[in-house]
Amino acid sequence: MHVQPDFVSMFERDLDRNAANHVPLTPTAFLRRAAQVFPDRIAVIHGERRYTYREVWERSTRFASALERSGIKPGDTVSILAPNIPAMIEAHYAVPMVGAVLNPINIRLDASTVAFILSHAEAKVLLVDTEFADLAAAALQLLDDPVLVVDIDDLGTGRGIGTLDYESLVESGDPAFECRAPADEWEALLLSYTSGTTGDPKGVVYHHRGAYVNALANVAVWRISGTPVYLWTLPIFHSLGWCFPWTIPLMGGVQVCLRKIDPGQVFELIRRHGVTHMAGAPIVLQMLIEAASAGTETIEGPVRVMTAASPPPASVIERIEAMGFETLHVYGLTEVFGPAVVSEPQDYWADLSVEERARIKARQGVAYPTVEAMDVLDPETMRPVPRDGSTMGEVMIRSNTVMKGYLKNRAASDAVFRDGWFHTGDIAVVYPDGYIELKDRSKDVIISGGENISSIEIEQVLYRLPQVANAAVVAMPHRKWGEAPCAFVEMRNDAGELTEADIIDHCRENLAKFKVPGRVVFGPIPKTATGKIQKFLLREKAALLQQ
Amino acid sequence: MHVQPDFVSMFERDLDRNAANHVPLTPTAFLRRAAQVFPDRIAVIHGERRYTYREVWERSTRFASALERSGIKPGDTVSILAPNIPAMIEAHYAVPMVGAVLNPINIRLDASTVAFILSHAEAKVLLVDTEFADLAAAALQLLDDPVLVVDIDDLGTGRGIGTLDYESLVESGDPAFECRAPADEWEALLLSYTSGTTGDPKGVVYHHRGAYVNALANVAVWRISGTPVYLWTLPIFHSLGWCFPWTIPLMGGVQVCLRKIDPGQVFELIRRHGVTHMAGAPIVLQMLIEAASAGTETIEGPVRVMTAASPPPASVIERIEAMGFETLHVYGLTEVFGPAVVSEPQDYWADLSVEERARIKARQGVAYPTVEAMDVLDPETMRPVPRDGSTMGEVMIRSNTVMKGYLKNRAASDAVFRDGWFHTGDIAVVYPDGYIELKDRSKDVIISGGENISSIEIEQVLYRLPQVANAAVVAMPHRKWGEAPCAFVEMRNDAGELTEADIIDHCRENLAKFKVPGRVVFGPIPKTATGKIQKFLLREKAALLQQ
Repeated sequence: MHVQPDFVSMFERDLDRNAANHVPLTPTAFLRRAAQVFPDRIAVIHGERRYTYREVWERSTRFASALERSGIKPGDTVSILAPNIPAMIEAHYAVPMVGAVLNPINIRLDASTVAFILSHAEAKVLLVDTEFADLAAAALQLLDDPVLVVDIDDLGTGRGIGTLDYESLVESGDPAFECRAPADEWEALLLSYTSGTTGDPKGVVYHHRGAYVNALANVAVWRISGTPVYLWTLPIFHSLGWCFPWTIPLMGGVQVCLRKIDPGQVFELIRRHGVTHMAGAPIVLQMLIEAASAGTETIEGPVRVMTAASPPPASVIERIEAMGFETLHVYGLTEVFGPAVVSEPQDYWADLSVEERARIKARQGVAYPTVEAMDVLDPETMRPVPRDGSTMGEVMIRSNTVMKGYLKNRAASDAVFRDGWFHTGDIAVVYPDGYIELKDRSKDVIISGGENISSIEIEQVLYRLPQVANAAVVAMPHRKWGEAPCAFVEMRNDAGELTEADIIDHCRENLAKFKVPGRVVFGPIPKTATGKIQKFLLREKAALLQQ
Repeated sequence: MHVQPDFVSMFERDLDRNAANHVPLTPTAFLRRAAQVFPDRIAVIHGERRYTYREVWERSTRFASALERSGIKPGDTVSILAPNIPAMIEAHYAVPMVGAVLNPINIRLDASTVAFILSHAEAKVLLVDTEFADLAAAALQLLDDPVLVVDIDDLGTGRGIGTLDYESLVESGDPAFECRAPADEWEALLLSYTSGTTGDPKGVVYHHRGAYVNALANVAVWRISGTPVYLWTLPIFHSLGWCFPWTIPLMGGVQVCLRKIDPGQVFELIRRHGVTHMAGAPIVLQMLIEAASAGTETIEGPVRVMTAASPPPASVIERIEAMGFETLHVYGLTEVFGPAVVSEPQDYWADLSVEERARIKARQGVAYPTVEAMDVLDPETMRPVPRDGSTMGEVMIRSNTVMKGYLKNRAASDAVFRDGWFHTGDIAVVYPDGYIELKDRSKDVIISGGENISSIEIEQVLYRLPQVANAAVVAMPHRKWGEAPCAFVEMRNDAGELTEADIIDHCRENLAKFKVPGRVVFGPIPKTATGKIQKFLLREKAALLQQ
């Protein structure tokens, strides 16, 4: 009996994947290559310490070997609680070398949240910078299962809480350790918990494929030339450090460490090391602007700054560019490996006034070239909103740079993966040129008398007042309209006086009547470690201010 | 009955690929994105013609639609015989849009080879630039199966041989045609026949995945900043145009067409359009040097030139750089999507003399960052050769940018895919810094008295003579030693006189005795369309010169 074989195209016959032409994509390849090609080039700078690529490779390999000897197996979780120090960078390289999954934890969380993450992530090892020893100790006390704790005494305090010391552990490792490559590019690379402004944090699982693609995409989008000197003003624990732990080795560049954002130190490092690139939330830019307005700080520039995490007020872009920084505004989320959308510069922008350019740059923009599709859809009908700059919809993304999903949380994954899209939960409009502009998180939209009000639109009006350092608008209950906007305002140190009535007058002049805040509250505005304003806390306050 | 499920890591559970987070990689996405983001920017320039990205997209879409209406189905082959003109670029975009496979044919082949390719590739359509109508007609006469012939009358000669005209075909297409994306990134994208210096040409099958990765890699390796203006001095039909048909749209850049290499026209286009980047074989550089030495040509520079295809003599690098070009030397093969190895510049090169820098740059270099592994191995033992700059071995590559294999030629595929490597057939040495230097094609090595002699080493010595324009060394039979080197030399037009004895004296001063050519033959040296010297023809001549 003859069975007719299915028709196979000649382009599929005897042309299979094999070991020579198909290799799982992994960003760790970029470090290995840098160590081979630029062994003696400085890779990491931290204070007076310098590590060449050869040294970073050897230290990471030893670290990986030591982890394996400690019983770490592929698929295990290694957590780390540390600022932007060499050990943090090395962990990004070493942990995947044993096939384990790195879990960088936000250093500004409270002990119970850290405990939740360690438990949920089933962490086998916790690396702790000694500055955060108390936080880690408090978190560990809340855990049932044992965790191997390794102290990183970057500050030389001697105040460890662990059973091992990081430098000794690295020292003990085998530099000839054979690094493990992923068997499949879909394997988990890293686990990053969302800041969780409400509810338990969700564990975003990254795959090797996405990090590889986004590391390359950063080069194209930022048009990185020469050998970048990259200053870590962005917390590495945030969204995989936007994939820069791999983009920089890919370019044979230098990573300059920074334990915390001190504007004076940022300016000093820029001058001392010839920093060419840095990234961070607009709040970082604002701190630099504040420091510069004190009159003592300058840069020889230009330094290129990639900014995201919250929509930068146009005034911030305008001022930081006047100081010699060149901004590139991007947008993304933890779930999409950091940046996925870019306010791609257009030729005609060069002819705009500084103010106009700042305003147009403040739009989030268009998809990264590696993002298959990004659009603003009506979440009910899943149809694109009109490109009119005013109709709001939800930002949706389809890309190889979207996470695997949320760890052990199928319901949450199912909620964001629907109809072939990742649902960002961010509300935006689309302009006729296809650029999107965020209007709100879907949960932050204010619904007043049936009208949707963008809190960001009101915030941008508030930022036009030179006295305003930070502004946030949330819904407060309103007897007649259901909700009404409530503004929280943080003034500059050196600002002149402004009353609630002054601010409301300013809003009346610049906003439709129904968008004018019913109340203005002065005082500090609570923020997450990454500079995101914690609107849920403001909403709690606003709830007490019913009109 | 309960079946115990296999253990699944928590990082694999409910974290599958889905339509939102996993999309087949395809370089055509870069054009679509450019059309969305830069619709009004010039994408292609040809003489006085200009096409914006919107127009290139629309024309390609119409072309794709027309192909589909003509009966082209996924997996069909569409061949094209054309120089670097807009239709050639558009074919790279349109043909994959219907899921078909583009087969660009070298325009300098003879009719019987073109016929072999059309037949072997099972071409359904042949697009022909009217300059090559006679060649195409002669080839078609040799075929049994009918092929739909489309004339591209770029020259306006009206001398078509086809049943359809390209511009009319494009015009007839539907601009709203829904483009097909590959269902799998391993699908065939393009079919490129090796120039086949011996035997029948082999059909190299490219996959979408590799072209995507190499298009991105070019940006990182060449450190392309700004908006590139790319001049097509490289034949697009050669190795997928080194993936630049996709690298340039990825960067929103401009492609400047060029029907043939005329040095005067190259200089004019550089000046007129502000060309920033170009690529080509060393022979192209040599033509520019010759033209400039006539004293009439200048560039304002710098223009960046990526050069490969045959090892550039250090003297060529030195002279072209003195003219204001910045060279980047790469190495690759048709089988690896064009460039895969780069003479990656090191910091200390800046301190070298021009001559030293040219010599060190002439080495082929290190792996592209996207190449998983590249090494020089003893093909018998498959062990790396020592890094001594003298032990020869075969260059082996393992990369996602290696072809699927040779079409309908399993034996040839099996011969190059062994032990997890792609065997390039190129012979090289490795220096202590890990940079490789090609010494020969394995079949070009001269074996004299049991010693391996690199023909390239002798050629480089010949190139040091300022009177030598081109040099090629092959084996000739030798009664005593088996083989001996035989040199073929092409002199510059304005060169002073040199005798065979002069040249042999020069070689005696610079080479070990057993490497000195036994004979020197003066006259033109035969080359392929891509500037590769056809050593098999020289070997035939040398065979008659037995010593």
